[in-house]
Amino acid sequence: MYRVYGDMLSGNCYKIKLLLRFLSIEHEWRHVDILAKETHSPEFIAINSNAKIPVLKINDAEYLSESNAILNYLAEGSVYLPASGLARARVLQWQFFEQYSHEPYIAVARFINKFLGLPADREQEYQSKQADGHKALAIMERQLGDTRFLIGDSPSIADISLYAYTHVADEGGFCLNEYPHIVSWCSYIEALPNYVSMARENA
Amino acid sequence: MYRVYGDMLSGNCYKIKLLLRFLSIEHEWRHVDILAKETHSPEFIAINSNAKIPVLKINDAEYLSESNAILNYLAEGSVYLPASGLARARVLQWQFFEQYSHEPYIAVARFINKFLGLPADREQEYQSKQADGHKALAIMERQLGDTRFLIGDSPSIADISLYAYTHVADEGGFCLNEYPHIVSWCSYIEALPNYVSMARENA
Repeated sequence: MYRVYGDMLSGNCYKIKLLLRFLSIEHEWRHVDILAKETHSPEFIAINSNAKIPVLKINDAEYLSESNAILNYLAEGSVYLPASGLARARVLQWQFFEQYSHEPYIAVARFINKFLGLPADREQEYQSKQADGHKALAIMERQLGDTRFLIGDSPSIADISLYAYTHVADEGGFCLNEYPHIVSWCSYIEALPNYVSMARENA
Repeated sequence: MYRVYGDMLSGNCYKIKLLLRFLSIEHEWRHVDILAKETHSPEFIAINSNAKIPVLKINDAEYLSESNAILNYLAEGSVYLPASGLARARVLQWQFFEQYSHEPYIAVARFINKFLGLPADREQEYQSKQADGHKALAIMERQLGDTRFLIGDSPSIADISLYAYTHVADEGGFCLNEYPHIVSWCSYIEALPNYVSMARENA
């Protein structure tokens, strides 16, 4: 049975939980407290030298890190990941967009605001995230005006990757009311069988 | 025939050139000047709403962006990308590491220094990139002490992704002499058939 090291309040970890539930894959969830710096313990560094969650334990010798790599691994052969070709590459296009052009703004603004309580010495950084966060949301909005899910008519792991931090973007100061297609898309994901919300008690 | 929109001096674009050469795939290279803001023209936004290079033109209707998504698309079925399973996911683990934990430090420090000439108003930002850049290099060094290439005995697109900005890290202020395994690894990549160096005249 897989073991996930993570914190449900982290969007990157929540992605893994969502896919595991959608695919009804049994797993154990091991809570790791980032604020208590548990990702920097020698035991944790031994399983991920980059000191980040989530990590998927495959077996006693093999661990996989990077949330989107884990999603690709778990989704292989399922309806959430096209088998090959441009559709599969399009999933990755959205996932790399998420990590480079979305997460560093929306997730980091949320972290500063929700978890650190918007301290004065990080307020300027928080404000600096807003414009690029909105740019990322506008790119999603444009796509979701054309297609029901990010790569077409049915959900893929690209949607799971982008949903994780988008649906709680308000916690980083981003009001989603400006993005009606994103709001509808969130409701489609929330209506999928086995959907689970982002709460520690759901881990 | 594929067309690539890019600039060879951008590591993200150079990745695509390297793989196309390694796989002997014919292609056309269309130079795009970032400093002249050509990625922000209406014509360019129409092919990539995120206004970034590289972009791969697949056909008149289909364009693919995000360097690592393009690599996965082009490498499908080749020796540079394992067909499935943990090895394939491990490639993605390194590529997501590259985009989140390596490129934002090493490539951005290089950009500020080499392309902008280290202006006074960005010197603090430049300095702030150094510690995390070295952290990324240390993680690579550790892996390359265990395996010849990032995921084992033979090169994959994970190596191409990480090589692009690592081999010019000195242009961002990172001296590679501290990382002997990285230096050896660079030499293994540079010895591969059809290797081409990062220069505009090689596009």
